[in-house]
Amino acid sequence: MSSDPMSDLIERTVAAVPRPDEAAMRDARAHQDRLTKPRGALGALEDVSVRLAGLAGTCPPPLPAPAAVAIFAADHGVHAQGVSPWPQEVTAQMVANFAVGGAVANAFARQVGAEVVVVDVGVAADLPAAPGLLDRKVARGTADLSQGPAMTAEQVRRAVAAGIEVAGGLADAGHRCLITGDMGIANTTASAALIAAFTGLPAERVTGRGTGIDDTVHARKIEVVRTALARHGLPGGDPLDVLAAVGGLEHAALAGFILGAAARRVPVLLDGVIAGAAALAAAALCPDVVAACVAGHRSVEPGHAATVEHLGLRPLVDLELRLGEGTGALLALPLVQSSVRVLHEVATFDSAGVSDKESRSAID
Amino acid sequence: MSSDPMSDLIERTVAAVPRPDEAAMRDARAHQDRLTKPRGALGALEDVSVRLAGLAGTCPPPLPAPAAVAIFAADHGVHAQGVSPWPQEVTAQMVANFAVGGAVANAFARQVGAEVVVVDVGVAADLPAAPGLLDRKVARGTADLSQGPAMTAEQVRRAVAAGIEVAGGLADAGHRCLITGDMGIANTTASAALIAAFTGLPAERVTGRGTGIDDTVHARKIEVVRTALARHGLPGGDPLDVLAAVGGLEHAALAGFILGAAARRVPVLLDGVIAGAAALAAAALCPDVVAACVAGHRSVEPGHAATVEHLGLRPLVDLELRLGEGTGALLALPLVQSSVRVLHEVATFDSAGVSDKESRSAID
Repeated sequence: MSSDPMSDLIERTVAAVPRPDEAAMRDARAHQDRLTKPRGALGALEDVSVRLAGLAGTCPPPLPAPAAVAIFAADHGVHAQGVSPWPQEVTAQMVANFAVGGAVANAFARQVGAEVVVVDVGVAADLPAAPGLLDRKVARGTADLSQGPAMTAEQVRRAVAAGIEVAGGLADAGHRCLITGDMGIANTTASAALIAAFTGLPAERVTGRGTGIDDTVHARKIEVVRTALARHGLPGGDPLDVLAAVGGLEHAALAGFILGAAARRVPVLLDGVIAGAAALAAAALCPDVVAACVAGHRSVEPGHAATVEHLGLRPLVDLELRLGEGTGALLALPLVQSSVRVLHEVATFDSAGVSDKESRSAID
Repeated sequence: MSSDPMSDLIERTVAAVPRPDEAAMRDARAHQDRLTKPRGALGALEDVSVRLAGLAGTCPPPLPAPAAVAIFAADHGVHAQGVSPWPQEVTAQMVANFAVGGAVANAFARQVGAEVVVVDVGVAADLPAAPGLLDRKVARGTADLSQGPAMTAEQVRRAVAAGIEVAGGLADAGHRCLITGDMGIANTTASAALIAAFTGLPAERVTGRGTGIDDTVHARKIEVVRTALARHGLPGGDPLDVLAAVGGLEHAALAGFILGAAARRVPVLLDGVIAGAAALAAAALCPDVVAACVAGHRSVEPGHAATVEHLGLRPLVDLELRLGEGTGALLALPLVQSSVRVLHEVATFDSAGVSDKESRSAID
């Protein structure tokens, strides 16, 4: 047991993550079957409501509202390898765009009534203070994961701790659903390396085209990931060491954010491939954390399919989004809220005086 | 040209349905490409925003809010053939459940901020007056489509006209998105017959298990549909005649509702297989009506996949729902609203001072 305060916070948080409450899940399933609808007619949404009952330890679970999206922003040394067609400065420019409400994540958040918080955990620029922008900068970007470790062990711990603290602060402020967001040019490269490291899949299976690259850049990106995995002896090793080797500061912070939400029994709605990579790290630290996670959407990134399969999650929205920022998860928020609202508000056959299916007594 | 007022209303409505405005669609595509996100990164939602610009004839199109769901309720003579395990009285009981806000559609409507209107176009019971319940009863259920025509030609026209008037009333009240809902025990049987008639697919390809039936009942349901198609000489004939032969009063009303929305340039969000069958009828009357339709969700009913393919629509939500009532479409409402909100609110690269992708000038 380490004696530094960040390690202590991480260990305490992991220890606080609850196991899913089987009794509450049984109650939720039984209640779904009494409601005025055919059994199972809400498909995957019934499963979401049951899982959130298990997380809350009670049925019905609290409505997952209000909600907040935390957009963790950071830069990546591996950008120097030419893995993205976007200049690195776009990370800082998009943080400014978030701050004035001009990005897609802001528009989606307004649509679904979610608060937006932007967390600078590692942008390679000095950012002017802005409302809703939290300065938790650990470093001015990571080092180049293809040349050496992306982060030091201490940087990883500081970023994970920052994520835990942001989740705790939002839970303290009354939020009952937390949403992952991310911004970081080149972060699909680090995500691919993390996904390969945590799932054991080869680089070419999990490395996609991010925000849009051609075949040449895609081939280079795969080679960068493959080389980095070999250099760092991955897969294998402690989850925090994997993050240090090939992760991003936003991945580490998101892993903490997910752990922090789970420890507070607050559901966390995952966006796409960056959140998925972070969730793999969180699950490696604490397998029970998956019970707090809802996969918001299915990204077109190939590593994302491998990630949700590894985690056993089913994405709710599947519309070929590939934007990040939390946009896919924000779109899923009303679906998650609707799934729980059913347990709170829908009448039962008995209470509504609706006749049950004729064959039920014979079948069930 | 018929001289009766209902035929006149139907003809006027069909004539008022606009062609999609190609210039507005081009504007929307071009604007999507200037926004601070990678091109195409919003996937299928970009297409929705472009289609709604085409419907509105302007870019950006109006935000599709406020929204209302109209749940058209009716009974079906074919219920006597044992095609559903639910007693027919459940239709009236669920109307009462809608009226007190106790059904899943009510809970979902509250979640997404949609008004609920229930329209009795053919429930086989006397319904007490209730807030939000419109009495447009054409008949106390249809006749048994397996024994003869389900409706008379006049009943079809009255039901279609009722749907047109409900859509017009909601548009007059300021609604900028209309959502289809339905309630009618045995209505998946009539839907299967309509889908077979309008797509030309065989009964066994389009007849599903509705709210949950076993193999024996499923086989009987397929046989009922097959026999009805043969008896009525389907596929073939005028769309209103097809509705009269094998449709339901709610299908006819929904076809009118869809036409009425399109004629007012108001987008109409389709629920599952019942709405899809009605949309096939509306599209047979007026192909341009499809430009006003957004497929809310993909139902597990096999006929629904055939329907959306025939209409060229892509469902937005795909969560194995099989409830009806408008529930799948209600879940999709925030997605549609988000897609349009992007055109209104998101900053462009120029306005936000965000650097564009390095390779754009070389590629585009």
